[in-house]
Amino acid sequence: MISVTRKSHFNAAHRLHNDDWSEEKNAEFYGLCNNKNYHGHNYDLEVTVTGEIDKESGYLIDMKYLSGIIEKKVCDRFDHKNLNLDTEEFKNLIPTAENIAVVIWNILRDEINPDFSISIKLYETQRNIVEYSG
Amino acid sequence: MISVTRKSHFNAAHRLHNDDWSEEKNAEFYGLCNNKNYHGHNYDLEVTVTGEIDKESGYLIDMKYLSGIIEKKVCDRFDHKNLNLDTEEFKNLIPTAENIAVVIWNILRDEINPDFSISIKLYETQRNIVEYSG
Amino acid sequence: MISVTRKSHFNAAHRLHNDDWSEEKNAEFYGLCNNKNYHGHNYDLEVTVTGEIDKESGYLIDMKYLSGIIEKKVCDRFDHKNLNLDTEEFKNLIPTAENIAVVIWNILRDEINPDFSISIKLYETQRNIVEYSG
Amino acid sequence: MISVTRKSHFNAAHRLHNDDWSEEKNAEFYGLCNNKNYHGHNYDLEVTVTGEIDKESGYLIDMKYLSGIIEKKVCDRFDHKNLNLDTEEFKNLIPTAENIAVVIWNILRDEINPDFSISIKLYETQRNIVEYSG
Amino acid sequence: MISVTRKSHFNAAHRLHNDDWSEEKNAEFYGLCNNKNYHGHNYDLEVTVTGEIDKESGYLIDMKYLSGIIEKKVCDRFDHKNLNLDTEEFKNLIPTAENIAVVIWNILRDEINPDFSISIKLYETQRNIVEYSG
Amino acid sequence: MISVTRKSHFNAAHRLHNDDWSEEKNAEFYGLCNNKNYHGHNYDLEVTVTGEIDKESGYLIDMKYLSGIIEKKVCDRFDHKNLNLDTEEFKNLIPTAENIAVVIWNILRDEINPDFSISIKLYETQRNIVEYSG
Repeated sequence: MISVTRKSHFNAAHRLHNDDWSEEKNAEFYGLCNNKNYHGHNYDLEVTVTGEIDKESGYLIDMKYLSGIIEKKVCDRFDHKNLNLDTEEFKNLIPTAENIAVVIWNILRDEINPDFSISIKLYETQRNIVEYSG
Repeated sequence: MISVTRKSHFNAAHRLHNDDWSEEKNAEFYGLCNNKNYHGHNYDLEVTVTGEIDKESGYLIDMKYLSGIIEKKVCDRFDHKNLNLDTEEFKNLIPTAENIAVVIWNILRDEINPDFSISIKLYETQRNIVEYSG
Repeated sequence: MISVTRKSHFNAAHRLHNDDWSEEKNAEFYGLCNNKNYHGHNYDLEVTVTGEIDKESGYLIDMKYLSGIIEKKVCDRFDHKNLNLDTEEFKNLIPTAENIAVVIWNILRDEINPDFSISIKLYETQRNIVEYSG
Repeated sequence: MISVTRKSHFNAAHRLHNDDWSEEKNAEFYGLCNNKNYHGHNYDLEVTVTGEIDKESGYLIDMKYLSGIIEKKVCDRFDHKNLNLDTEEFKNLIPTAENIAVVIWNILRDEINPDFSISIKLYETQRNIVEYSG
Repeated sequence: MISVTRKSHFNAAHRLHNDDWSEEKNAEFYGLCNNKNYHGHNYDLEVTVTGEIDKESGYLIDMKYLSGIIEKKVCDRFDHKNLNLDTEEFKNLIPTAENIAVVIWNILRDEINPDFSISIKLYETQRNIVEYSG
Repeated sequence: MISVTRKSHFNAAHRLHNDDWSEEKNAEFYGLCNNKNYHGHNYDLEVTVTGEIDKESGYLIDMKYLSGIIEKKVCDRFDHKNLNLDTEEFKNLIPTAENIAVVIWNILRDEINPDFSISIKLYETQRNIVEYSG
């Protein structure tokens, strides 16, 4: 078993807000992240694919194919977007880094050979990072 | 003459839009950055101060003082904000990285000993960077 | 299961010396790290917490809470200190990167919800790194 | 159980080409990496060793010893080399990042105490990474 | 006056060899870099453009235009190439990092508005860097 | 004119203390950096040399020579040392980052061809940086 990782990135705006909570509770719990006018991040994304090397090609997976899938299915969808307003995925899901990582994992799970396991590492800032492996 | 540099950061949402242009021209010129619902960035900020070493202390400027000024006057003002909606500075100024750098330079120029020259380096992303020295 | 990681840092002096060994053996084994006058490092610390997302908040753990605990319990204790002379933890324990990582893990294990597992990654330099998960 | 990681690097040229395939298939499959005149990379290498701390020294493994082994057995062998032409290892093995990681793991497995498990992380570029643990 | 910088990268093989020198002198002077079978690098490139902000757009230069020029004129020309064998520029010029920086500066000088000054920063490795401003 | 930069590093302990000041003034002015038992840093050092390319070799200066000088004259002198106690240079000079940069510049100025200008960039931490050009 071997793993390959591809780094990508996208920039987006978001707001953390639970519609079932009062304004006061949202402001207290999420702090600055609750700003009603949104704030934003440069999201750095690492996608790791694990499986067996193909003996013939010496590849686990073609990196051009993998990076193409990530660009088309993840980055094009979220880059330069307002996650709360411009995406289907976060219409009813709070766009915390944790939830964004889970959403990306689910998107890519449908696109990548099921013989491979996949893992997502998402940097919301250089100091706050989330990892999800399904 | 010696220079000291302090790195800080803030996260913000913004939109690039010239009110004097048509919607079509804005969309064509600014591309994804014109998204009416905003997008965002992790802005990394380097402030460089240049002058003569104080022989007695061995400091050019006390880094705790410098980082305190940057936090209070710049980061607290812009962090987790929507630059277009939440700040006075960008009510009538397009928040391009160039303009943000000039605004930060002007803010800090008023706060730092005029015997020192200052320079701003602003990373909008890890690949797009602006520098301004007045 | 999901993991979140928070990066912090502290600067400290230390010396590697086993009191049960001769001066010669210490000098030979630890080399430059045995310098009796101490040397020092910028320690970069990554704390990873693993568990289940709280559906209501979309958080695994509040990053402000986590970073506050790390600052208060770890960084304030070790930052700008001589690990051998200024701390209780290394009075009788050699402050190798391995032992520092174990000490930090034990400190944080007492502070973080036992439903979560925790892991420590400590960079003594950018080329020498230790990881400990209990 | 604790892990220590040492970072090293080497620069090399390589070409991806399967001698059992036609020129057309090689060109189509490997793309630019198939260039008959070679291209090259700065390979960043992280070697992770996992085991139990030696209570007496506070070390898992002496980092000077570990870095010496990596320099002598891996970097000296591959640094500033053409992997296809100048090395025994890739005479009959396509030097993909995956295969290079496996080769390095096998080289180091013979050199490091079998009580320790080892893992290799190889950065072919800052965006393409391979990990192998045997 | 303000500066904007765009980062790009390309991977290439090269060999340092002066045809006017003996094999012995080449081997002694260039060391490992003289390997007749080539070695290679991940070249990180920063292009800095300096001039006056356009008041209307808030841009010095459109970053999409700048990055497009760099990709088309520099990266496509050198990426995954053997600089000695596959390029016109280094047929009769030794591809040291210094010479590569000068060649890139000359290529871009012809493409960018002469009202702007330009500067090149080229990382041959993360520890060896060249800067050229014409 | 072209510039080449070489990165190196050393680890050291230090204490900021002005013997002409009272203990109280030292503690207040230097804060944690005044700790009588010392603290330490990983110092990252960039040395930039500027001059004309040698047409024959394509080099400004041989990087192996430059890195050898830096290792021998700077890193070997300060690495794993207590700057206050173990070095001649800081017996009577407070080892602030500013003063360390000036000392390193003076050391290297004596070693490098006077046709070249030199510049020092010293990272005391990743967020505090000093530059000195004589």
